[in-house]
Amino acid sequence: MKPFTSSPPEAVSALREIALLRAMREWLGIVTPPSPQGMGDDCAVLDLGASHAILAKSDGVVYGRHFDDTAQPEAVAAKLLKRNLSDIAAMGGTPKHALVHLVIGRNLSSTWLKKFYVGLAKCCEEYGITVAGGGTAQGPDGLFAADLTLLGISGANVLVRAGAEIGDAIFVTGELGGSILGKHLDFTPRLVEGQWLAQQDGVRGVIDISDGLAKDLPEILPADSDAQIDAATLPISDDAKKLSEQDKQPALTHALTDGEDYELLFALNSAVDPKAFAKSWSKTFSTKLTQIGVIVAADDRRHDRQLRDAKSQLLLKPGEGGHEHLH
Amino acid sequence: MKPFTSSPPEAVSALREIALLRAMREWLGIVTPPSPQGMGDDCAVLDLGASHAILAKSDGVVYGRHFDDTAQPEAVAAKLLKRNLSDIAAMGGTPKHALVHLVIGRNLSSTWLKKFYVGLAKCCEEYGITVAGGGTAQGPDGLFAADLTLLGISGANVLVRAGAEIGDAIFVTGELGGSILGKHLDFTPRLVEGQWLAQQDGVRGVIDISDGLAKDLPEILPADSDAQIDAATLPISDDAKKLSEQDKQPALTHALTDGEDYELLFALNSAVDPKAFAKSWSKTFSTKLTQIGVIVAADDRRHDRQLRDAKSQLLLKPGEGGHEHLH
Repeated sequence: MKPFTSSPPEAVSALREIALLRAMREWLGIVTPPSPQGMGDDCAVLDLGASHAILAKSDGVVYGRHFDDTAQPEAVAAKLLKRNLSDIAAMGGTPKHALVHLVIGRNLSSTWLKKFYVGLAKCCEEYGITVAGGGTAQGPDGLFAADLTLLGISGANVLVRAGAEIGDAIFVTGELGGSILGKHLDFTPRLVEGQWLAQQDGVRGVIDISDGLAKDLPEILPADSDAQIDAATLPISDDAKKLSEQDKQPALTHALTDGEDYELLFALNSAVDPKAFAKSWSKTFSTKLTQIGVIVAADDRRHDRQLRDAKSQLLLKPGEGGHEHLH
Repeated sequence: MKPFTSSPPEAVSALREIALLRAMREWLGIVTPPSPQGMGDDCAVLDLGASHAILAKSDGVVYGRHFDDTAQPEAVAAKLLKRNLSDIAAMGGTPKHALVHLVIGRNLSSTWLKKFYVGLAKCCEEYGITVAGGGTAQGPDGLFAADLTLLGISGANVLVRAGAEIGDAIFVTGELGGSILGKHLDFTPRLVEGQWLAQQDGVRGVIDISDGLAKDLPEILPADSDAQIDAATLPISDDAKKLSEQDKQPALTHALTDGEDYELLFALNSAVDPKAFAKSWSKTFSTKLTQIGVIVAADDRRHDRQLRDAKSQLLLKPGEGGHEHLH
């Protein structure tokens, strides 16, 4: 059977990324258990007979999609590893082993590939990770696609996306938006912060921001709820403001939708004082932490999990979503 | 930096697959430990705090390389999973969890993809495997590349490629050659056989035959040794004979070099009676088992790990190697 089609509605590009992932889970049926054992969280949480859970994540980079000719190969390798590290961070885990699989064209430069691997080694060493396997397959000329599977171990407590409730405070680390100006290649996965969060009472609904706040925040909201965001407190990066000057889009839109922020987003049980929590954070880390809003009951239950401002207005118009990998 | 080159000697295609993997290990340096903890065995053997080792393997399929339009999507999915199962089998392990990562063109057919996933689910169910994660990235039109990472657990004994010694008998399961006529898509990974082998005394130097006996057998030979093969006993498949009639190449050459046999190859300590061992096997399995030769001291130590016949003649001329993924 021919895998490709010339009919647009039949092509996978007709599906948005979320719809495609939902379809995959449906097609897989019972062999993919509910998250976090199956698909749907930042990492899978696996029982492989150890005292703690094993965390596993597989994500990749593709030439022309996640990097271009302006990127140094060492930086591409670091991005490949750190994308996965950010997911381990969002579970509060510790990374251990990586497997790397490449699909490459015959015309890939050996010099470029060497720099990529040397860069990968340097980044692995920095995070105490061993490369446990790897292989290559031939693809069409001009293709470089690398997939990295990262295995780690959790602490006694695993941070998952589920669990947030109405009334919870919403926090975000670092600053958002404008990652295309550099941060998408050069960022620090929030590993120690994630490990610390896993030890705090009341932290739940944790995700790393890879597709943009507007797309990732709804993932942690319970049903029949919205996020009420205080736009004035949103930590908008200087790069988002710089982009805004160039393209005349609001900096806020950049902060909400650019994606590749690789910051942690989480909810805090309303039983915990958010100010005391933030104080405790800033005693431990220099990384910025901002309460950006609270989880509220949905205004309109048929269209919940929206980002709204204090006046219940939508922060983004419908269709202004986050990053879409297949578009 | 531009990843691609128009200079042939600078392109990765100038490297053979073995040279490329060797270079990758060299570039990675200390972050890839000696096998089986690092690269170089069928699976990586990982310590993740469990009572038994965790086995991990990552391998993929690419359109135009591992399958074409004549293959059904369900069969492509089964091949993707079973390639990795064959590696778990070669370690004597039990598969548990899979992560699947796709790089796909926008013109991939949703119908084809659905059949692929439904087929993957069916095959996972058959082997008791859960799909623990997955993602997609956009690649150029006409591309379908899937990478699957398979995690499993070992029994008390892990079968590795190392350990064979001069004097060991060499065994192979099933029949070899001609896989392109169907077996490359439709094969049974030797999981129960591998688990049984892991419980037998004297079994060592185990590998699955994916690149062809001529390329995979040298992987289990100790230094300064050759494999002395009794060509008359080599289990040549009917498909290898059929191909031989078509292309006038000897059926033996097909059996040695076609690859994608997904059979197990192993050495047996000379302290164990190979006839009694084979009898014990045939009481347990209907799968064919053949002693194809013994490991002998190398005739010429500068060119060891060769396949020779009883008269010390090379079975293949130099250059008639096994399957080369990048050529």
